[in-house]
Amino acid sequence: MQQTCTKQITRWNQSVPIQVDDDLVVEEPLEIRVGEQSLIVVMRTPGHDFELAAGFLFTESLIKSADDIEIIAYCEEGDITSETEDKSLDFDLMQNIVNVRLTEHLDLEEQSGWQRNFHANASCGLCGKMTIESVKHQVNPLNSVFNIKQTVLYELNDKLRASQSVFEKTGGLHAAGLFDENGELVIIREDIGRHNAVDKVIGQALLSDMIPLDRYILMVSGRASFEIIQKALFARIPIVAAVSAASTLAVDLATEGNLTLIGFMRGMQMSVYSCPERIQK
Amino acid sequence: MQQTCTKQITRWNQSVPIQVDDDLVVEEPLEIRVGEQSLIVVMRTPGHDFELAAGFLFTESLIKSADDIEIIAYCEEGDITSETEDKSLDFDLMQNIVNVRLTEHLDLEEQSGWQRNFHANASCGLCGKMTIESVKHQVNPLNSVFNIKQTVLYELNDKLRASQSVFEKTGGLHAAGLFDENGELVIIREDIGRHNAVDKVIGQALLSDMIPLDRYILMVSGRASFEIIQKALFARIPIVAAVSAASTLAVDLATEGNLTLIGFMRGMQMSVYSCPERIQK
Repeated sequence: MQQTCTKQITRWNQSVPIQVDDDLVVEEPLEIRVGEQSLIVVMRTPGHDFELAAGFLFTESLIKSADDIEIIAYCEEGDITSETEDKSLDFDLMQNIVNVRLTEHLDLEEQSGWQRNFHANASCGLCGKMTIESVKHQVNPLNSVFNIKQTVLYELNDKLRASQSVFEKTGGLHAAGLFDENGELVIIREDIGRHNAVDKVIGQALLSDMIPLDRYILMVSGRASFEIIQKALFARIPIVAAVSAASTLAVDLATEGNLTLIGFMRGMQMSVYSCPERIQK
Repeated sequence: MQQTCTKQITRWNQSVPIQVDDDLVVEEPLEIRVGEQSLIVVMRTPGHDFELAAGFLFTESLIKSADDIEIIAYCEEGDITSETEDKSLDFDLMQNIVNVRLTEHLDLEEQSGWQRNFHANASCGLCGKMTIESVKHQVNPLNSVFNIKQTVLYELNDKLRASQSVFEKTGGLHAAGLFDENGELVIIREDIGRHNAVDKVIGQALLSDMIPLDRYILMVSGRASFEIIQKALFARIPIVAAVSAASTLAVDLATEGNLTLIGFMRGMQMSVYSCPERIQK
Protein backbone atom coordinates (compact mmCIF):
# COMPACT_ATOMS: atom_id res chain seq x y z
CA MET A 1 0.00 0.00 0.00
CA GLN A 2 1.88 2.99 -1.31
CA GLN A 3 1.88 6.32 0.46
CA THR A 4 4.16 7.99 -2.04
CA CYS A 5 4.57 7.64 -5.77
CA THR A 6 7.42 8.79 -8.01
CA LYS A 7 6.54 10.80 -11.09
CA GLN A 8 8.67 12.58 -13.62
CA ILE A 9 8.11 16.32 -13.41
CA THR A 10 9.64 19.50 -14.79
CA ARG A 11 11.50 21.39 -12.11
CA TRP A 12 12.17 25.03 -12.96
CA ASN A 13 15.01 26.85 -11.26
CA GLN A 14 14.93 30.45 -12.43
CA SER A 15 14.91 30.16 -16.23
CA VAL A 16 16.13 26.58 -16.40
CA PRO A 17 13.67 23.68 -16.65
CA ILE A 18 14.95 20.16 -16.01
CA GLN A 19 13.26 16.78 -15.91
CA VAL A 20 13.50 15.19 -12.47
CA ASP A 21 11.87 12.38 -10.54
CA ASP A 22 9.71 13.64 -7.71
CA ASP A 23 7.93 11.89 -4.84
CA LEU A 24 4.26 12.74 -4.55
CA VAL A 25 1.90 11.86 -1.77
CA VAL A 26 -0.73 9.36 -2.83
CA GLU A 27 -4.36 10.44 -2.62
CA GLU A 28 -7.03 7.81 -3.21
CA PRO A 29 -10.68 7.42 -2.27
CA LEU A 30 -11.64 5.05 0.53
CA GLU A 31 -15.21 3.84 0.67
CA ILE A 32 -16.32 2.88 4.17
CA ARG A 33 -19.18 0.40 4.31
CA VAL A 34 -21.10 -0.55 7.43
CA GLY A 35 -22.84 -3.87 7.02
CA GLU A 36 -24.15 -3.77 3.50
CA GLN A 37 -24.50 0.00 3.39
CA SER A 38 -22.04 2.34 1.75
CA LEU A 39 -21.53 4.98 4.41
CA ILE A 40 -19.11 7.46 2.95
CA VAL A 41 -16.16 7.93 0.62
CA VAL A 42 -13.22 9.92 1.93
CA MET A 43 -10.15 11.06 0.06
CA ARG A 44 -7.19 9.74 1.98
CA THR A 45 -3.61 8.57 1.80
CA PRO A 46 -3.65 4.76 1.78
CA GLY A 47 -2.48 2.97 4.91
CA HIS A 48 -4.00 2.37 8.33
CA ASP A 49 -7.37 2.16 6.65
CA PHE A 50 -9.00 0.03 9.34
CA GLU A 51 -7.97 2.61 11.92
CA LEU A 52 -9.39 5.35 9.74
CA ALA A 53 -12.69 3.49 9.47
CA ALA A 54 -12.78 2.79 13.22
CA GLY A 55 -11.81 6.34 14.12
CA PHE A 56 -14.33 7.80 11.71
CA LEU A 57 -17.19 5.71 13.08
CA PHE A 58 -16.18 6.57 16.64
CA THR A 59 -15.73 10.31 16.15
CA GLU A 60 -19.00 10.42 14.21
CA SER A 61 -20.64 8.85 17.24
CA LEU A 62 -21.84 5.82 15.28
CA ILE A 63 -20.05 3.44 17.65
CA LYS A 64 -19.27 3.83 21.33
CA SER A 65 -16.31 1.49 21.76
CA ALA A 66 -14.18 -1.10 20.00
CA ASP A 67 -16.58 -3.74 21.33
CA ASP A 68 -19.15 -2.50 18.83
CA ILE A 69 -16.92 -3.69 15.99
CA GLU A 70 -17.05 -7.35 15.03
CA ILE A 71 -14.62 -7.21 12.14
CA ILE A 72 -13.05 -4.75 9.70
CA ALA A 73 -11.79 -6.05 6.39
CA TYR A 74 -11.08 -4.97 2.85
CA CYS A 75 -13.82 -5.96 0.48
CA GLU A 76 -13.57 -9.12 -1.55
CA GLU A 77 -14.06 -9.63 -5.24
CA GLY A 78 -17.72 -10.58 -4.93
CA ASP A 79 -18.53 -7.34 -3.10
CA ILE A 80 -17.80 -5.22 -6.14
CA THR A 81 -20.64 -4.77 -8.55
CA SER A 82 -20.19 -3.88 -12.17
CA GLU A 83 -21.46 -0.44 -11.32
CA THR A 84 -18.58 0.30 -8.96
CA GLU A 85 -16.02 -1.23 -11.23
CA ASP A 86 -14.52 1.22 -13.66
CA LYS A 87 -11.58 0.14 -15.70
CA SER A 88 -10.50 3.73 -16.26
CA LEU A 89 -9.54 4.07 -12.61
CA ASP A 90 -5.96 3.10 -12.12
CA PHE A 91 -6.10 2.20 -8.46
CA ASP A 92 -7.13 -1.07 -6.92
CA LEU A 93 -10.75 -1.07 -5.78
CA MET A 94 -10.09 -3.99 -3.43
CA GLN A 95 -7.71 -1.83 -1.44
CA ASN A 96 -10.08 1.11 -1.41
CA ILE A 97 -13.23 -0.34 0.08
CA VAL A 98 -13.39 -1.27 3.75
CA ASN A 99 -16.23 -3.29 5.24
CA VAL A 100 -17.03 -2.81 8.91
CA ARG A 101 -19.29 -5.41 10.49
CA LEU A 102 -20.75 -4.29 13.78
CA THR A 103 -21.82 -6.54 16.65
CA GLU A 104 -25.28 -5.01 16.53
CA HIS A 105 -27.18 -3.85 13.50
CA LEU A 106 -26.86 -0.14 13.00
CA ASP A 107 -29.72 1.46 11.12
CA LEU A 108 -28.29 4.59 9.60
CA GLU A 109 -31.76 5.93 8.97
CA GLU A 110 -32.36 5.94 12.71
CA GLN A 111 -29.14 7.77 13.51
CA SER A 112 -30.52 11.26 13.51
CA GLY A 113 -27.19 12.80 14.43
CA TRP A 114 -25.47 10.94 11.66
CA GLN A 115 -28.18 11.56 9.12
CA ARG A 116 -27.81 15.22 9.86
CA ASN A 117 -24.06 15.11 9.44
CA PHE A 118 -24.41 13.04 6.36
CA HIS A 119 -26.34 15.79 4.71
CA ALA A 120 -24.29 18.56 6.19
CA ASN A 121 -20.91 17.45 4.95
CA ALA A 122 -19.26 19.06 1.98
CA SER A 123 -16.70 21.65 2.84
CA CYS A 124 -14.28 19.65 0.76
CA GLY A 125 -16.09 19.88 -2.55
CA LEU A 126 -16.25 16.64 -4.42
CA CYS A 127 -14.60 13.55 -3.08
CA GLY A 128 -14.79 9.87 -3.57
CA LYS A 129 -14.67 7.30 -6.23
CA MET A 130 -18.13 7.79 -7.65
CA THR A 131 -17.35 11.44 -7.94
CA ILE A 132 -14.11 10.77 -9.76
CA GLU A 133 -16.06 8.86 -12.34
CA SER A 134 -18.62 11.60 -12.73
CA VAL A 135 -15.89 14.23 -13.19
CA LYS A 136 -14.26 12.13 -15.83
CA HIS A 137 -17.53 11.94 -17.66
CA GLN A 138 -18.50 15.56 -17.33
CA VAL A 139 -15.34 17.57 -17.81
CA ASN A 140 -13.87 17.79 -21.27
CA PRO A 141 -10.11 18.26 -21.51
CA LEU A 142 -8.97 21.83 -22.02
CA ASN A 143 -7.82 22.78 -25.48
CA SER A 144 -6.52 26.21 -24.53
CA VAL A 145 -3.27 27.22 -26.24
CA PHE A 146 -2.77 29.86 -23.59
CA ASN A 147 0.82 30.13 -22.43
CA ILE A 148 2.76 32.31 -20.06
CA LYS A 149 6.31 33.39 -19.28
CA GLN A 150 7.97 31.84 -16.28
CA THR A 151 8.93 35.31 -15.01
CA VAL A 152 5.24 36.24 -14.74
CA LEU A 153 4.53 33.09 -12.73
CA TYR A 154 7.33 33.75 -10.25
CA GLU A 155 5.70 37.03 -9.24
CA LEU A 156 2.29 35.59 -8.40
CA ASN A 157 3.10 34.28 -4.94
CA ASP A 158 4.28 37.64 -3.64
CA LYS A 159 1.28 39.37 -5.18
CA LEU A 160 -1.09 36.92 -3.54
CA ARG A 161 0.56 37.30 -0.15
CA ALA A 162 0.59 41.08 -0.41
CA SER A 163 -3.16 41.07 -0.96
CA GLN A 164 -4.08 38.69 1.85
CA SER A 165 -5.54 41.11 4.35
CA VAL A 166 -7.03 38.65 6.82
CA PHE A 167 -4.12 36.26 6.79
CA GLU A 168 -1.82 39.00 8.01
CA LYS A 169 -3.99 39.54 11.04
CA THR A 170 -4.70 35.94 11.94
CA GLY A 171 -2.27 33.67 10.14
CA GLY A 172 -5.20 31.36 9.67
CA LEU A 173 -6.61 31.66 6.18
CA HIS A 174 -6.26 30.07 2.82
CA ALA A 175 -6.24 32.33 -0.22
CA ALA A 176 -7.12 31.79 -3.86
CA GLY A 177 -6.23 34.35 -6.49
CA LEU A 178 -7.16 34.66 -10.14
CA PHE A 179 -4.48 36.30 -12.27
CA ASP A 180 -4.64 37.44 -15.88
CA GLU A 181 -2.05 36.74 -18.52
CA ASN A 182 -0.03 39.79 -17.48
CA GLY A 183 0.17 38.54 -13.91
CA GLU A 184 -2.34 41.09 -12.64
CA LEU A 185 -4.44 39.95 -9.70
CA VAL A 186 -8.07 40.11 -10.79
CA ILE A 187 -9.91 38.38 -7.91
CA ILE A 188 -8.68 37.30 -4.50
CA ARG A 189 -10.71 35.56 -1.81
CA GLU A 190 -9.71 34.22 1.59
CA ASP A 191 -11.44 31.54 3.58
CA ILE A 192 -10.75 29.04 6.31
CA GLY A 193 -11.63 26.37 3.76
CA ARG A 194 -9.39 26.02 0.71
CA HIS A 195 -12.22 24.90 -1.49
CA ASN A 196 -14.40 27.74 -0.33
CA ALA A 197 -11.76 30.29 -1.33
CA VAL A 198 -11.68 28.72 -4.81
CA ASP A 199 -15.48 28.59 -5.01
CA LYS A 200 -15.68 32.27 -4.06
CA VAL A 201 -13.22 33.20 -6.81
CA ILE A 202 -15.02 31.14 -9.42
CA GLY A 203 -18.41 32.31 -8.13
CA GLN A 204 -17.36 35.95 -8.53
CA ALA A 205 -16.07 35.19 -12.04
CA LEU A 206 -19.35 33.45 -12.86
CA LEU A 207 -21.48 36.34 -11.59
CA SER A 208 -19.27 38.77 -13.56
CA ASP A 209 -19.77 36.77 -16.74
CA MET A 210 -16.04 35.99 -17.05
CA ILE A 211 -16.40 32.25 -17.61
CA PRO A 212 -14.75 30.44 -19.42
CA LEU A 213 -11.57 31.55 -17.64
CA ASP A 214 -9.39 30.21 -20.42
CA ARG A 215 -6.80 32.99 -20.23
CA TYR A 216 -6.37 33.07 -16.46
CA ILE A 217 -4.21 31.45 -13.81
CA LEU A 218 -5.52 30.25 -10.46
CA MET A 219 -3.07 30.40 -7.57
CA VAL A 220 -3.79 28.81 -4.18
CA SER A 221 -1.90 29.39 -0.97
CA GLY A 222 -1.77 25.76 0.14
CA ARG A 223 -1.72 22.40 -1.53
CA ALA A 224 -3.34 21.36 -4.79
CA SER A 225 -5.85 18.61 -4.22
CA PHE A 226 -8.02 16.68 -6.61
CA GLU A 227 -11.01 18.86 -5.79
CA ILE A 228 -9.26 22.12 -6.66
CA ILE A 229 -8.19 20.78 -10.05
CA GLN A 230 -11.70 19.68 -10.69
CA LYS A 231 -13.14 23.07 -9.84
CA ALA A 232 -10.58 24.73 -12.11
CA LEU A 233 -11.52 22.40 -14.95
CA PHE A 234 -15.18 23.32 -14.60
CA ALA A 235 -14.22 26.99 -14.94
CA ARG A 236 -11.85 26.12 -17.85
CA ILE A 237 -8.79 27.55 -16.10
CA PRO A 238 -5.69 26.30 -17.98
CA ILE A 239 -3.04 26.85 -15.27
CA VAL A 240 -3.26 26.14 -11.52
CA ALA A 241 -0.33 27.05 -9.28
CA ALA A 242 0.02 26.06 -5.62
CA VAL A 243 2.50 27.17 -2.98
CA SER A 244 2.71 23.63 -1.62
CA ALA A 245 2.56 20.07 -2.87
CA ALA A 246 0.18 18.37 -5.28
CA SER A 247 -1.31 14.93 -4.74
CA THR A 248 -1.13 12.03 -7.17
CA LEU A 249 -4.82 12.26 -7.93
CA ALA A 250 -4.58 16.00 -8.59
CA VAL A 251 -1.77 15.36 -11.07
CA ASP A 252 -3.68 12.51 -12.73
CA LEU A 253 -6.76 14.67 -13.19
CA ALA A 254 -4.72 17.65 -14.41
CA THR A 255 -2.93 15.45 -16.94
CA GLU A 256 -6.19 14.00 -18.16
CA GLY A 257 -7.84 17.43 -18.34
CA ASN A 258 -4.84 18.95 -20.16
CA LEU A 259 -4.41 21.46 -17.33
CA THR A 260 -0.99 22.81 -16.32
CA LEU A 261 -0.47 22.05 -12.64
CA ILE A 262 2.35 23.77 -10.77
CA GLY A 263 3.38 23.10 -7.17
CA PHE A 264 5.97 24.40 -4.71
CA MET A 265 5.93 27.78 -6.41
CA ARG A 266 8.23 29.72 -4.14
CA GLY A 267 10.81 32.32 -5.00
CA MET A 268 12.07 31.60 -8.50
CA GLN A 269 11.43 27.89 -8.42
CA MET A 270 8.48 25.70 -9.26
CA SER A 271 7.55 22.09 -9.97
CA VAL A 272 5.43 21.51 -13.06
CA TYR A 273 3.45 18.29 -12.87
CA SER A 274 1.48 18.38 -16.11
CA CYS A 275 1.32 20.16 -19.47
CA PRO A 276 4.64 22.02 -19.09
CA GLU A 277 4.36 23.33 -22.64
CA ARG A 278 2.24 26.27 -21.47
CA ILE A 279 5.24 27.75 -19.66
CA GLN A 280 7.68 29.78 -21.73
CA LYS A 281 11.21 30.92 -20.94
CA MET B 1 -19.94 40.46 8.52
CA GLN B 2 -16.81 39.80 10.51
CA GLN B 3 -13.91 37.82 9.15
CA THR B 4 -11.80 38.18 12.27
CA CYS B 5 -12.67 38.30 15.93
CA THR B 6 -10.54 39.45 18.85
CA LYS B 7 -10.27 37.15 21.85
CA GLN B 8 -8.18 37.31 24.98
CA ILE B 9 -5.69 34.47 25.04
CA THR B 10 -2.66 33.41 27.05
CA ARG B 11 0.53 33.83 25.09
CA TRP B 12 3.47 31.88 26.44
CA ASN B 13 7.00 32.99 25.63
CA GLN B 14 9.38 30.44 27.14
CA SER B 15 8.29 30.21 30.78
CA VAL B 16 6.31 33.44 30.86
CA PRO B 17 2.55 33.49 30.22
CA ILE B 18 0.87 36.80 29.53
CA GLN B 19 -2.70 37.77 28.68
CA VAL B 20 -2.96 39.34 25.24
CA ASP B 21 -5.66 40.17 22.70
CA ASP B 22 -5.40 38.03 19.60
CA ASP B 23 -7.17 38.15 16.24
CA LEU B 24 -8.76 34.87 15.21
CA VAL B 25 -10.24 33.96 11.87
CA VAL B 26 -13.99 33.53 12.03
CA GLU B 27 -15.40 30.11 11.11
CA GLU B 28 -19.16 29.77 10.81
CA PRO B 29 -21.50 27.39 9.01
CA LEU B 30 -23.25 28.51 5.84
CA GLU B 31 -26.35 26.65 4.74
CA ILE B 32 -26.95 26.81 0.99
CA ARG B 33 -30.57 26.32 -0.06
CA VAL B 34 -31.75 25.84 -3.61
CA GLY B 35 -35.41 26.67 -3.94
CA GLU B 36 -36.94 25.23 -0.82
CA GLN B 37 -34.37 22.50 -0.42
CA SER B 38 -31.46 22.62 1.97
CA LEU B 39 -28.55 21.56 -0.21
CA ILE B 40 -25.52 21.60 2.03
CA VAL B 41 -23.88 23.24 5.01
CA VAL B 42 -20.25 24.29 4.61
CA MET B 43 -17.92 25.66 7.27
CA ARG B 44 -16.63 28.93 5.94
CA THR B 45 -15.32 32.36 6.81
CA PRO B 46 -18.21 34.83 6.43
CA GLY B 47 -18.10 37.21 3.47
CA HIS B 48 -18.72 36.82 -0.25
CA ASP B 49 -21.35 34.24 0.58
CA PHE B 50 -23.34 34.72 -2.63
CA GLU B 51 -20.18 34.07 -4.62
CA LEU B 52 -19.52 30.99 -2.55
CA ALA B 53 -23.04 29.71 -3.24
CA ALA B 54 -22.76 30.48 -6.95
CA GLY B 55 -19.29 28.99 -7.25
CA PHE B 56 -20.31 25.90 -5.33
CA LEU B 57 -23.34 25.27 -7.53
CA PHE B 58 -21.25 25.83 -10.65
CA THR B 59 -18.29 23.66 -9.68
CA GLU B 60 -20.67 20.93 -8.53
CA SER B 61 -22.19 21.07 -12.01
CA LEU B 62 -25.65 21.95 -10.71
CA ILE B 63 -25.78 25.09 -12.85
CA LYS B 64 -24.16 25.80 -16.19
CA SER B 65 -23.99 29.60 -16.17
CA ALA B 66 -24.98 32.71 -14.26
CA ASP B 67 -28.16 32.78 -16.36
CA ASP B 68 -29.40 29.78 -14.40
CA ILE B 69 -29.55 31.92 -11.26
CA GLU B 70 -32.60 34.11 -10.75
CA ILE B 71 -31.63 35.54 -7.38
CA ILE B 72 -29.37 34.85 -4.42
CA ALA B 73 -30.32 36.28 -1.04
CA TYR B 74 -29.87 35.73 2.65
CA CYS B 75 -32.86 34.09 4.23
CA GLU B 76 -35.51 36.16 5.91
CA GLU B 77 -37.04 35.74 9.30
CA GLY B 78 -39.96 33.69 8.07
CA ASP B 79 -37.65 31.14 6.47
CA ILE B 80 -36.32 29.97 9.80
CA THR B 81 -38.33 27.34 11.54
CA SER B 82 -38.24 26.75 15.26
CA GLU B 83 -36.27 23.62 14.52
CA THR B 84 -33.40 25.50 12.96
CA GLU B 85 -33.44 28.18 15.59
CA ASP B 86 -31.22 27.39 18.51
CA LYS B 87 -30.60 30.05 21.07
CA SER B 88 -27.39 28.40 22.20
CA LEU B 89 -25.72 29.30 18.91
CA ASP B 90 -24.09 32.67 19.18
CA PHE B 91 -24.00 33.56 15.51
CA ASP B 92 -26.74 35.09 13.43
CA LEU B 93 -28.74 32.51 11.49
CA MET B 94 -29.97 35.18 9.07
CA GLN B 95 -26.41 35.75 7.90
CA ASN B 96 -25.66 32.06 7.64
CA ILE B 97 -28.37 30.81 5.32
CA VAL B 98 -28.32 31.69 1.64
CA ASN B 99 -31.27 31.03 -0.66
CA VAL B 100 -30.57 30.51 -4.34
CA ARG B 101 -33.56 30.69 -6.67
CA LEU B 102 -32.89 29.21 -10.08
CA THR B 103 -34.58 30.20 -13.30
CA GLU B 104 -35.63 26.61 -13.86
CA HIS B 105 -36.64 24.12 -11.25
CA LEU B 106 -33.78 21.84 -10.28
CA ASP B 107 -34.80 18.48 -8.94
CA LEU B 108 -31.91 17.33 -6.81
CA GLU B 109 -33.22 13.80 -6.82
CA GLU B 110 -32.75 13.74 -10.58
CA GLN B 111 -29.19 15.02 -10.46
CA SER B 112 -27.43 11.72 -10.36
CA GLY B 113 -24.00 13.27 -10.39
CA TRP B 114 -24.92 15.51 -7.51
CA GLN B 115 -26.71 12.83 -5.57
CA ARG B 116 -23.59 10.77 -5.81
CA ASN B 117 -21.41 13.59 -4.59
CA PHE B 118 -23.87 14.40 -1.90
CA HIS B 119 -23.41 10.98 -0.45
CA ALA B 120 -19.72 10.80 -1.12
CA ASN B 121 -18.70 13.93 0.72
CA ALA B 122 -17.13 13.81 4.14
CA SER B 123 -13.40 14.11 4.17
CA CYS B 124 -13.85 17.02 6.50
CA GLY B 125 -15.56 15.18 9.33
CA LEU B 126 -18.52 16.97 10.75
CA CYS B 127 -19.51 20.36 9.53
CA GLY B 128 -22.52 22.56 9.56
CA LYS B 129 -24.98 24.10 11.89
CA MET B 130 -27.09 21.06 12.56
CA THR B 131 -23.96 19.19 13.40
CA ILE B 132 -22.83 21.85 15.82
CA GLU B 133 -26.08 21.40 17.68
CA SER B 134 -25.72 17.65 17.77
CA VAL B 135 -22.15 17.90 19.11
CA LYS B 136 -23.29 20.21 21.83
CA HIS B 137 -25.90 17.70 22.83
CA GLN B 138 -23.70 14.65 22.66
CA VAL B 139 -20.34 15.64 24.05
CA ASN B 140 -20.05 16.23 27.76
CA PRO B 141 -17.41 18.72 28.89
CA LEU B 142 -14.15 17.17 30.02
CA ASN B 143 -13.50 17.05 33.73
CA SER B 144 -9.90 15.88 33.46
CA VAL B 145 -7.52 17.47 35.97
CA PHE B 146 -4.61 16.40 33.80
CA ASN B 147 -1.93 19.03 33.53
CA ILE B 148 1.45 19.31 31.91
CA LYS B 149 4.65 21.33 32.09
CA GLN B 150 5.22 23.91 29.40
CA THR B 151 8.69 22.48 28.77
CA VAL B 152 7.15 19.15 27.76
CA LEU B 153 4.81 20.90 25.31
CA TYR B 154 7.62 22.83 23.65
CA GLU B 155 9.28 19.56 22.63
CA LEU B 156 6.28 18.04 20.88
CA ASN B 157 6.59 19.86 17.57
CA ASP B 158 10.15 18.68 16.95
CA LYS B 159 9.22 15.15 17.94
CA LEU B 160 6.28 15.15 15.55
CA ARG B 161 8.36 16.49 12.68
CA ALA B 162 11.16 14.02 13.36
CA SER B 163 8.70 11.16 13.02
CA GLN B 164 6.98 12.33 9.85
CA SER B 165 8.46 9.93 7.36
CA VAL B 166 6.28 10.69 4.36
CA PHE B 167 6.27 14.43 4.81
CA GLU B 168 10.03 14.50 4.45
CA LYS B 169 9.78 12.84 1.08
CA THR B 170 6.85 14.74 -0.34
CA GLY B 171 6.23 17.86 1.71
CA GLY B 172 2.59 17.12 1.24
CA LEU B 173 1.12 15.50 4.32
CA HIS B 174 -0.61 16.43 7.50
CA ALA B 175 0.40 14.66 10.67
CA ALA B 176 -1.40 13.97 13.94
CA GLY B 177 0.49 12.67 16.96
CA LEU B 178 -0.69 11.39 20.30
CA PHE B 179 1.72 12.11 23.16
CA ASP B 180 1.64 10.84 26.73
CA GLU B 181 2.13 12.96 29.82
CA ASN B 182 5.91 12.61 29.58
CA GLY B 183 5.91 13.94 26.03
CA GLU B 184 6.55 10.52 24.51
CA LEU B 185 5.06 10.01 21.06
CA VAL B 186 2.67 7.08 21.29
CA ILE B 187 0.90 7.13 17.92
CA ILE B 188 1.62 9.12 14.78
CA ARG B 189 -0.32 9.03 11.53
CA GLU B 190 0.08 11.01 8.33
CA ASP B 191 -2.56 11.67 5.72
CA ILE B 192 -3.37 14.10 2.96
CA GLY B 193 -6.52 14.95 4.96
CA ARG B 194 -6.07 16.53 8.38
CA HIS B 195 -9.17 14.90 9.75
CA ASN B 196 -8.14 11.53 8.42
CA ALA B 197 -4.81 11.75 10.28
CA VAL B 198 -6.73 12.46 13.49
CA ASP B 199 -9.25 9.68 12.79
CA LYS B 200 -6.39 7.23 12.22
CA VAL B 201 -4.78 8.15 15.53
CA ILE B 202 -8.04 7.89 17.43
CA GLY B 203 -8.99 4.73 15.55
CA GLN B 204 -5.70 3.10 16.54
CA ALA B 205 -6.27 4.16 20.16
CA LEU B 206 -9.80 2.78 20.01
CA LEU B 207 -8.67 -0.57 18.60
CA SER B 208 -5.93 -0.71 21.28
CA ASP B 209 -8.47 -0.11 24.03
CA MET B 210 -6.82 3.15 25.10
CA ILE B 211 -9.96 5.29 25.15
CA PRO B 212 -10.69 7.50 27.09
CA LEU B 213 -7.48 9.33 26.22
CA ASP B 214 -7.76 11.55 29.26
CA ARG B 215 -4.03 11.70 29.97
CA TYR B 216 -2.84 12.35 26.43
CA ILE B 217 -2.09 15.30 24.19
CA LEU B 218 -3.05 15.47 20.52
CA MET B 219 -0.75 17.50 18.29
CA VAL B 220 -1.62 18.37 14.69
CA SER B 221 0.73 19.74 12.06
CA GLY B 222 -1.64 22.33 10.66
CA ARG B 223 -4.52 24.40 11.92
CA ALA B 224 -7.05 23.52 14.60
CA SER B 225 -10.55 23.50 13.17
CA PHE B 226 -13.90 22.88 14.79
CA GLU B 227 -13.92 19.30 13.54
CA ILE B 228 -10.61 18.39 15.13
CA ILE B 229 -11.70 19.69 18.51
CA GLN B 230 -14.88 17.73 18.21
CA LYS B 231 -13.03 14.51 17.42
CA ALA B 232 -10.70 15.12 20.38
CA LEU B 233 -13.69 15.63 22.67
CA PHE B 234 -15.19 12.32 21.59
CA ALA B 235 -11.93 10.61 22.52
CA ARG B 236 -11.77 12.64 25.78
CA ILE B 237 -8.39 14.20 24.94
CA PRO B 238 -7.83 17.13 27.33
CA ILE B 239 -5.15 19.04 25.37
CA VAL B 240 -4.96 19.73 21.63
CA ALA B 241 -1.95 21.58 20.22
CA ALA B 242 -1.64 22.87 16.66
CA VAL B 243 1.34 24.27 14.78
CA SER B 244 -0.87 26.89 13.15
CA ALA B 245 -3.92 28.98 13.94
CA ALA B 246 -7.21 28.06 15.55
CA SER B 247 -10.61 29.25 14.33
CA THR B 248 -13.22 31.01 16.43
CA LEU B 249 -15.52 28.01 16.35
CA ALA B 250 -12.71 25.68 17.43
CA VAL B 251 -12.02 27.95 20.40
CA ASP B 252 -15.70 28.20 21.27
CA LEU B 253 -16.11 24.43 21.23
CA ALA B 254 -12.89 23.89 23.20
CA THR B 255 -14.01 26.39 25.81
CA GLU B 256 -17.40 24.78 26.11
CA GLY B 257 -15.89 21.28 26.26
CA ASN B 258 -13.30 22.34 28.86
CA LEU B 259 -10.51 21.32 26.49
CA THR B 260 -7.15 23.11 26.44
CA LEU B 261 -6.55 24.39 22.91
CA ILE B 262 -3.09 25.58 21.94
CA GLY B 263 -2.13 27.16 18.63
CA PHE B 264 1.02 28.50 16.97
CA MET B 265 3.15 26.09 18.96
CA ARG B 266 6.55 26.78 17.48
CA GLY B 267 9.91 26.92 19.18
CA MET B 268 9.36 27.96 22.79
CA GLN B 269 6.20 29.93 22.18
CA MET B 270 2.53 29.05 22.07
CA SER B 271 -0.93 30.64 22.16
CA VAL B 272 -3.38 29.11 24.62
CA TYR B 273 -6.98 29.75 23.63
CA SER B 274 -8.89 27.88 26.33
CA CYS B 275 -8.41 26.24 29.73
CA PRO B 276 -4.86 27.55 30.32
CA GLU B 277 -4.87 26.10 33.84
CA ARG B 278 -3.72 22.71 32.51
CA ILE B 279 -0.32 24.18 31.62
CA GLN B 280 2.24 24.46 34.41
CA LYS B 281 5.46 26.44 34.57
